[in-house]
Amino acid sequence: MKVVCIGSGNVATHFALALKKSNAEILQVYSQHQEHAQVLADEVDAMAIDDTALISPDADLYLIAIKDDAIASVSSILKNIKGLVVHTSGATPMSVLEGMSRYGVLYPLQTFSRSRALDFSNVPLCVEAGDGDMLKEVKAVAELLSPLVYDVDSVQRKVLHLSAVFVCNFVNHMYAIGADILSAAGLDFELLKPLIMETAAKVQHAEPSSVQTGPAIRGDEQTMNRHKELLMDRPELAAIYETLSNSIKKTH
Amino acid sequence: MKVVCIGSGNVATHFALALKKSNAEILQVYSQHQEHAQVLADEVDAMAIDDTALISPDADLYLIAIKDDAIASVSSILKNIKGLVVHTSGATPMSVLEGMSRYGVLYPLQTFSRSRALDFSNVPLCVEAGDGDMLKEVKAVAELLSPLVYDVDSVQRKVLHLSAVFVCNFVNHMYAIGADILSAAGLDFELLKPLIMETAAKVQHAEPSSVQTGPAIRGDEQTMNRHKELLMDRPELAAIYETLSNSIKKTH
Repeated sequence: MKVVCIGSGNVATHFALALKKSNAEILQVYSQHQEHAQVLADEVDAMAIDDTALISPDADLYLIAIKDDAIASVSSILKNIKGLVVHTSGATPMSVLEGMSRYGVLYPLQTFSRSRALDFSNVPLCVEAGDGDMLKEVKAVAELLSPLVYDVDSVQRKVLHLSAVFVCNFVNHMYAIGADILSAAGLDFELLKPLIMETAAKVQHAEPSSVQTGPAIRGDEQTMNRHKELLMDRPELAAIYETLSNSIKKTH
Repeated sequence: MKVVCIGSGNVATHFALALKKSNAEILQVYSQHQEHAQVLADEVDAMAIDDTALISPDADLYLIAIKDDAIASVSSILKNIKGLVVHTSGATPMSVLEGMSRYGVLYPLQTFSRSRALDFSNVPLCVEAGDGDMLKEVKAVAELLSPLVYDVDSVQRKVLHLSAVFVCNFVNHMYAIGADILSAAGLDFELLKPLIMETAAKVQHAEPSSVQTGPAIRGDEQTMNRHKELLMDRPELAAIYETLSNSIKKTH
């Protein structure tokens, strides 16, 4: 399989590396910035390009992994391409690709960091395509990368992306607040790491709402008041504490 | 070492099992409810009691793992005890034990579920004691259970407990919201599990604020507006979305 990788950020990098590993040939890596394209191109033995006019017409797969609001304009350039065109965005409907001859979506439900190796075989891949034949093709690509392949339409994908904001982006912000509170008290974030791992591990085998703990669910007002006192000088954190504690109380 | 375990909930259970495993003898398990005491007592070959008057005066260690607001009254019963009296609460100052002859705190910075086996060697234990000699004793007990033993005074412990609310209790609530949103769309929580583990794993080796991702930090208003539309019928979740997105924007 010959691949053109459009984009050179975290998602593009992890896809290109995983595709290369499963014996695909990466022909080109495109980025607006030649030097960004070059970094990834060097890793996967591809040609770096910064001009969409240079995109090869001969690839089997055009993988679009760029900022959401740039997908429509880049894909319009690929209108006469015969290969399969897929984007990887959780928040972008498939309809932006409707001008293509063959198209689909390959949305990886995972968080990517450039600096962290990732085992793609543990990444759920959510697939959608223009018709049944195209879906078979998108699935064939997905199955090269991971056994976790799910049929997810554009509406469901939007919901998945929203829930990922809660369980990933907002969760990471909670970690950042924890680290911030500790560092202000001269304590090491190291102390929280086992708790963070165990909290994530617990919900691998239990409904999150069934393993909720803490002062809010116990209705322990005394502890909550002490916590709010500690946050007196941090009104923004106090507001988050209040909002989330109330939400836990309401839920249970 | 002879131990009386005061309490029979999650924390008491995990401590009693870990102490037993490190060859301590659990003499008694106390609970207000005989049948609760009995369950744990059976697991650790101890006697179950529901009357504080029956507490043995012969133990080396009295481990108090009960609700925070009950610690003061139970400890007043132990006034003439010669053994070491420790509580395990993050939110309770050591001063509630000041009437005892030997006392301290052994606060495990971890989340406990009855149904989940826990490797105590990965639990940070925060220790404090009435004086240097007592501290040595508390540390000796802690080191039987875990290599992760930290000196933490009552003020620091309160801060740790607060940050644990953010990185554990609030994080779990984010998982519950994610599960809730998915289930309303007929999607399986299974899909989010790898993302949850990877998000926790990422901050084991990086500052949380340095690996923040998502629409808020990108300033991607279009995606955030789409998300808020999806939450139109869930004003409470929309408010959480708004509060946390604003906090992420402000932080970065």
